Amino acid sequence: MLVDYPSSLGNYIADPDGNVLLDVFAQIASIPLGYNNPALAEIAKSPEMVNAIINRPALGNFPPKDWAETLRAGLLRAAPKGLDQVFTAMSGSDANETAYKAAFMWRRQQERGGYNVDFTEEEIQSVMNNQAPGASQLSILSFKSGFHGRLFGSLSTTRSKPIHKLDIPAFDWPQATFPQLKYPLEEHAAENAAAEKAALEEVEHLILNYHVPPAAVVVEPIQSEGGDNHASPAFFRGLREITKKHNVLLIVDEVQTGVGATGEFWAHSHWKLDSPPDIVTFSKKAQAAGFYYTNPELRPNKPYRQFNTWMGDPVRAILFKGIIGEIERLNLVESTARVGNYLFSELEKLAAKYPGQFDNLRGKGQGTFIAFDTPKRDALLKQAKSLGVNIGGSGERTVRLRPMLIFQEHHADILLEVLEKIASA
Amino acid sequence: MLVDYPSSLGNYIADPDGNVLLDVFAQIASIPLGYNNPALAEIAKSPEMVNAIINRPALGNFPPKDWAETLRAGLLRAAPKGLDQVFTAMSGSDANETAYKAAFMWRRQQERGGYNVDFTEEEIQSVMNNQAPGASQLSILSFKSGFHGRLFGSLSTTRSKPIHKLDIPAFDWPQATFPQLKYPLEEHAAENAAAEKAALEEVEHLILNYHVPPAAVVVEPIQSEGGDNHASPAFFRGLREITKKHNVLLIVDEVQTGVGATGEFWAHSHWKLDSPPDIVTFSKKAQAAGFYYTNPELRPNKPYRQFNTWMGDPVRAILFKGIIGEIERLNLVESTARVGNYLFSELEKLAAKYPGQFDNLRGKGQGTFIAFDTPKRDALLKQAKSLGVNIGGSGERTVRLRPMLIFQEHHADILLEVLEKIASA
Repeated sequence: MLVDYPSSLGNYIADPDGNVLLDVFAQIASIPLGYNNPALAEIAKSPEMVNAIINRPALGNFPPKDWAETLRAGLLRAAPKGLDQVFTAMSGSDANETAYKAAFMWRRQQERGGYNVDFTEEEIQSVMNNQAPGASQLSILSFKSGFHGRLFGSLSTTRSKPIHKLDIPAFDWPQATFPQLKYPLEEHAAENAAAEKAALEEVEHLILNYHVPPAAVVVEPIQSEGGDNHASPAFFRGLREITKKHNVLLIVDEVQTGVGATGEFWAHSHWKLDSPPDIVTFSKKAQAAGFYYTNPELRPNKPYRQFNTWMGDPVRAILFKGIIGEIERLNLVESTARVGNYLFSELEKLAAKYPGQFDNLRGKGQGTFIAFDTPKRDALLKQAKSLGVNIGGSGERTVRLRPMLIFQEHHADILLEVLEKIASA
Repeated sequence: MLVDYPSSLGNYIADPDGNVLLDVFAQIASIPLGYNNPALAEIAKSPEMVNAIINRPALGNFPPKDWAETLRAGLLRAAPKGLDQVFTAMSGSDANETAYKAAFMWRRQQERGGYNVDFTEEEIQSVMNNQAPGASQLSILSFKSGFHGRLFGSLSTTRSKPIHKLDIPAFDWPQATFPQLKYPLEEHAAENAAAEKAALEEVEHLILNYHVPPAAVVVEPIQSEGGDNHASPAFFRGLREITKKHNVLLIVDEVQTGVGATGEFWAHSHWKLDSPPDIVTFSKKAQAAGFYYTNPELRPNKPYRQFNTWMGDPVRAILFKGIIGEIERLNLVESTARVGNYLFSELEKLAAKYPGQFDNLRGKGQGTFIAFDTPKRDALLKQAKSLGVNIGGSGERTVRLRPMLIFQEHHADILLEVLEKIASA
């Protein structure tokens, strides 16, 4: 679908033929505040932005004098509780891979004996041949159906679909089963708890026994590309406990869940963890990308270990100041929680009225981050488009709703009407 | 060094204390037209740009209606001879990794029997466990001292310095020796030719015998981070011949050499190849990133094989239209060739006058892409800064000159004066 963005507005996307669609896919969940947001347009025209566009700095060597302030007023203001440092990157894949690199350096630093212990000559020699001990024989543990990106390291942790991975060399890294919850949750409490317990045991087993030991576990709060698979806060608390116990980092991939859509700014806030994740990655609705962390040992112990020419993009970091400003000014996280509750309860009614059309409705209490399964998924997405709503799918038969943060009850009503029209046809 | 970019201008970079430096490093060779270029500033303020900033599309699913035209008027207008298709990415590392993925898919497609032959059930099953045959057991051959990026796949081909690679898991991929030319070239013709012949033989040997067969060879026209190592056009023609003979792709990494600085728009034009490289990657001075290719078989045979949320950045693609426009309007490639010749001949005089201070002067006929070795390199870089010139290093003792395309003879004179002041001290 070719799109005429200058004619799009708010929750509505326009094509060049004059068709206007309510957009609840939002550029694969990556538009935070709607199209042509006037506050962001002002920032886009500012001298600060023009400077960032035409004088793009190599941030690692020549940061702008206001770079620290840009981060403080933007990305760091949004930092998850307990995480006070940020490393900027260019995309979700890049954010995850820099996080993985941080994890490998941290783990090897511990094994080596600490921050100030130097590399051995054997490490220095072997690494130039891509061999151990210089190139570490460590892994990142991820979950089946998880998605963490498409570059070689991130793709090795992605387990969504074969088409994402075929023909590309991959690292021999372990995967654990993500609990497959049954819905409605109330009716399957015991079964679901057992599935989560089994998954945690599998994680622990892999940490202790996999032949390429994990330096970190990476997990999405809601497996998004993999079909909107949820797990309970108890599961994630268990994961935090196991990783801490075995000195393995916990990386929470909030590339798709982050920035408000679940009714919390960061989805992992729903878990009420005793101690924060070690690393939280972000991209998409942040428009900027990167990872948050807290442990100073995750900061490289020498220059040029985590480095590249651009190291992020000030254009997007400046834009994020506007995004967080509007989210706060308009209480968009609370608003998304409220609208999500409304949308979910109305979808529950549709599910009751049209059995088999809205299976495994999930995302209750998770803002507008809602999904359901339906037998003729691809047909539904196509029909919805012809009826004026742009919706996305994920997994094999899942409809995933990804409205922007400015989505209100009256937009939900349009979506619900179209879904009912299709279900009743 | 914190930088005050709004006060920088043209070839000059300003710090907040009011110090102004002639900048011949240019954000690690990534600023094409100088700071605060007025033509780019106009584009940065345009409604087209504002739209690209605030309505960032998921290009693979929802391209803007003018996206094809943006590419045609910009990135495709700059395409190297013989390469008429472009895949956009976000950084040099990302450009190389998507190119590697294209190479792996192409090779497996051939092995499988062609464009329309489907994946086997065994491939589909095994790839989800990161195992062969679904995850291919293929490699990318790179050269010692080469630099191709910092993500997990690109870093596996990077062989610049241990600090770039230590602790990060790497693929077991082969490396060949890059010819170590001796200078002045005229005095070492036979020896250099022998070194290049030996390097080519090593490449052929590795292609035929390495236990993880290469799908592609990746090479920089001038190894930039590795210390400005050059090879002759004959060497590269030989590389093209060998790769063609053995059905291995030739990927030319023009991330640092591309966009004019060598006195050709693309450095590989100097080689006068009979048939073009299969893939040419770009970033840095293009500001946008990605790869060019020509063979339709390098286009994925199914949707979602080469895919990610953003797939490049229209902000940078739009900016590139202005960059190519100014390069053409002001004949900046020709100008760079001319100024480079002047700078090189003056450096030759300094080298003769101060023996041992300007060793292995190289880059003759390569525009301003000039380098030399010097015993107290880091001290020189520091002194130059205090004398008003920002210069970069590479390798262990190399001074690399990376002026922007607007660098003129009178700027060269300032640089030469400072270099002589340091040499004579």
